[in-house]
Amino acid sequence: MQDPNCQSPDDIAQMMADIGARAKSAAATLGTARADDRRRALEEAARLIMLRADDILAANAQDMAFGRAKDLSVAMLDRLALSKDRLAAIADGLCAVAAQDDPVGSVIATWDRPNGLHITRVRTPLGVIGVIYESRPNVTADAGALCLKSGNAVILRGGSESLHSSAALVACLRAGLAAAGLPEDAVQLVPTRDRAAVRALLTMTEYVDVIVPRGGKGLVGLVQTEARVPVFAHLEGVCHIYLDAAADPEKALRVTLNAKTRRTGICGAAECLLIHRDIVETIGRDVIAALIGAGVEVRGDTTLQALPGVVAAKEEDWGREFLDSIIAARVVDDIDAAIAHIRQFGSHHTESILTEDAGAAAQFFAQLDSAILMHNASTQFADGGEFGMGAEIGIATGKLHARGPVGAEQLTSFKYLVTGNGTIRP
Amino acid sequence: MQDPNCQSPDDIAQMMADIGARAKSAAATLGTARADDRRRALEEAARLIMLRADDILAANAQDMAFGRAKDLSVAMLDRLALSKDRLAAIADGLCAVAAQDDPVGSVIATWDRPNGLHITRVRTPLGVIGVIYESRPNVTADAGALCLKSGNAVILRGGSESLHSSAALVACLRAGLAAAGLPEDAVQLVPTRDRAAVRALLTMTEYVDVIVPRGGKGLVGLVQTEARVPVFAHLEGVCHIYLDAAADPEKALRVTLNAKTRRTGICGAAECLLIHRDIVETIGRDVIAALIGAGVEVRGDTTLQALPGVVAAKEEDWGREFLDSIIAARVVDDIDAAIAHIRQFGSHHTESILTEDAGAAAQFFAQLDSAILMHNASTQFADGGEFGMGAEIGIATGKLHARGPVGAEQLTSFKYLVTGNGTIRP
Repeated sequence: MQDPNCQSPDDIAQMMADIGARAKSAAATLGTARADDRRRALEEAARLIMLRADDILAANAQDMAFGRAKDLSVAMLDRLALSKDRLAAIADGLCAVAAQDDPVGSVIATWDRPNGLHITRVRTPLGVIGVIYESRPNVTADAGALCLKSGNAVILRGGSESLHSSAALVACLRAGLAAAGLPEDAVQLVPTRDRAAVRALLTMTEYVDVIVPRGGKGLVGLVQTEARVPVFAHLEGVCHIYLDAAADPEKALRVTLNAKTRRTGICGAAECLLIHRDIVETIGRDVIAALIGAGVEVRGDTTLQALPGVVAAKEEDWGREFLDSIIAARVVDDIDAAIAHIRQFGSHHTESILTEDAGAAAQFFAQLDSAILMHNASTQFADGGEFGMGAEIGIATGKLHARGPVGAEQLTSFKYLVTGNGTIRP
Repeated sequence: MQDPNCQSPDDIAQMMADIGARAKSAAATLGTARADDRRRALEEAARLIMLRADDILAANAQDMAFGRAKDLSVAMLDRLALSKDRLAAIADGLCAVAAQDDPVGSVIATWDRPNGLHITRVRTPLGVIGVIYESRPNVTADAGALCLKSGNAVILRGGSESLHSSAALVACLRAGLAAAGLPEDAVQLVPTRDRAAVRALLTMTEYVDVIVPRGGKGLVGLVQTEARVPVFAHLEGVCHIYLDAAADPEKALRVTLNAKTRRTGICGAAECLLIHRDIVETIGRDVIAALIGAGVEVRGDTTLQALPGVVAAKEEDWGREFLDSIIAARVVDDIDAAIAHIRQFGSHHTESILTEDAGAAAQFFAQLDSAILMHNASTQFADGGEFGMGAEIGIATGKLHARGPVGAEQLTSFKYLVTGNGTIRP
C-alpha cells in the first residue's frame, strides 16, 4: 500500500468510498452466513492474538514511541499501552462474545392472525457499522467482535496514535474471518491518520448504516454535529445520586463512595449528589465526610457549605461532567425536587436513588427517563459487561433504536417473515 | 387566532417553535400519565367525533369546496371526503387503539446478574412525533391515536386541502385529553398552509424526536432529504412476487391476482412478477393470462413477450412503482436469480415467494432483507391492521428502530430499571 498520508482529500474520499463498498458487499455475505462460522472466526482471531503477541507488542511499541514524541499524557499513554496480560484479556473478550447466543435470525416474537397468516419477527444485521475511537487499541477488538457477532461489517477508525497496534489486531480478526471462509473485508481499518477520512465516513450514507463514536466529548460532539449517518452515542454521563429521606445509612455511604471514587474517569461515575433535606445532618453529613476523606472535592450549595471541608459550588457545576475527584452536591426539599433537578441538568445516562421506600423508588423509575435508572446500586454498573451483554460497543443516550449499553443485540434490526397458504386479502 | 397565512417566515418559525415547546412539555406529562387516562382520552375522543358529526362534516364540506376550486382529481377528492360512515370507522379505529395493551412501561425483558443486580427493560415513549401527510383526514385520527396510546405528543401537519376537517377531528382529540385530565397540547395541528411550517418541523431537533411522512414519493423524498430529525418512512413499495419452480398453480394464480389487483394504488401492491424458467409455459402462462384478463398491462421480458397480450418491458420498468394496473414480468433461471433481481431492484418493502418447497422459502426468507417477506401470501397484507397492531402510523423500510408497519409499540423507546441492595461495583 502506498503511504496513505500523502493522499489528497479527493483521494481520501475515493479510498473511503472503496472501503465502504467493500464493507457493504462483505456485510451481505456475513449477514447470511452460518452462526457457527461467525463464532469460529472470533475464536480463531482470539487464538491468533495470543500466537502473534510478540508482533502485536512490537507494533504497539511503535505507537508508544509516536505517542511519547507527541507528548501524550501519562493517562493517554496508559490507555494506549498493550502487554501480554492485556492481550490475554482482549482474546478472552473475543471468546466471551463468540460464546454468546447468536442474535442473527433469532425470533423476537411470533403470532398467528385471524386472516390466516403466521407472522414471525426475526433479528437481522444492520449492515455496516462505522466505529470512530481514540487511542485505546482494545476497542478495535471489542467493536470488531460485537459487529461480527451481530453479522455486521465494521469500518474502524482508531486514534492516530494507535494505528500500528490496531492494524495488528485487525489483521488477526481478518485472518479469523478468512479461516472461517468469511469475507475479510467485514473488518477494515482506515489506513490513514488524515481527518478527511473521518469526515468521509460520517457522510457515507450509501455505505454506512450507523456510526458509533467512542471517546471524549470533543470527538462525540463533532460526530453528532457532522454525521449524516445515524449515530449511537452519549455526549456525556452526568450521573446523579439521590439520597432519599428513607435512605439506608450504610447503603448510602457505600454506594455513593463507589459511584464517585471507584473510577472517576468513566461515563458511569457520579457527578452530582442530591440530598433530601431531612437527612442532611445525619446521612448527608456522613456521606460527605467520607467523600472528602477519600480525597473528593465536594462542591456544595449554601446549606452544605456549613459542613466541614465543603467548598462552594458555582452555577456551572450543576450538570457538569467532572470526570475527576470532584462532585457537586445540593440539598433538595423532596423527591419531586430531586427529579426536577435531574430533568433539568441530567444527560439521560444513569441516575441512582438510595431509599428503603419502595414508593419513592417507583416514582424515581417512572418519572425519570434516563437510559439507566438504579435503586440502591452504584452508577458505575452502567456497562454492557455488567449488564450481561458480554461487551459493549458504547453507551447510547438517544432514544432511537439503541439505548444504554450497546451490545450485539442492539446492533441488529429485524424483519417480518409471513407464511400463508395461498392466503389473499379480502 | 390571526390568519396564520399572513405571517412572515420568521413568524412561522417562531410559531412552530412554540408548538414544539408545548408538545415537549405535554409529552413529559403524557409519558408518565396512567394508562387508563390515555385510554379514556381516546374513548372520549371517539364519542365526541360521533356527537359532533354534523360540525365535522360541515368543516369537511368547506375543504371539499376548496379542493374542487383547486381542481383536485376525483381520486384526491374521494380521499378527502368524509361521511357519517367514514366518521364511524374513524371512531371505531380510535376505540380499537384504545383497547390495545398499553405499551408504556411494559416489560420487554427482565433478568438477574451475578453482580447482584436485578435488571428490567421497560418501554418508554419516544417524546414528540411529527406527522406530515397529504389530504386524508382519517390519518389525523389514526396518527393522533397511536401517538397518544404510546405516550407521545404529536404535531400534525395535514395536507392544506384537509385543514378544516383535520382541525375538527383534532378538536375532538384535544377535548378527549382534557376530559381525561391530560394536556391538550399532546395533540396539535399546524394551523397554516404555509410550507415554511413543514421546513421548520423537519429541523426542530430540539423539540421533535421522529418525523413520519405519509403520502406520495414526492412528499416522502422531500422529507427524507430535508429532515434533520430522524424519519420513519418508506419512499416506495416496489413489491415482488416470485413464482418458484415448485409453486402450487392455484395458489400462484390466486395470490398474484390479489397482490396486483385488489388495490393498485397502495404501497403493498405487487409491481413485479418473477417467474422460474421451468414453469413459464404452465403456471406462468396461466397467471399472466389471468392478469391480462383482469385488465392488467403485463410488461414482459423477451421470453414473456411470446405470450398473448404481453407488451415489451423497458429497462426502467424493473424496480418501478407503477401504483396502477401495470406489472413488470421477467423470467429467472432459478431462485438465486430471483433473489439477485430483488436485491438489485427492490425497495426493501415486501416480497412474496410462491412455492411448496420449504427449502426455497427458507432461502428466500434468509437471503433477502426486506421489511416483510412472505410465503404463499399476498403482498397486500403489508399493513399494521392485518399484522394485529390495531392501526399503523406508516410503513418503514429503514433498518433503525422501526421497520415494516409502525404501530404504537414501535413508537416507544425503552429504559433499564436496575435494582440492587446497596450493590457496588468491585
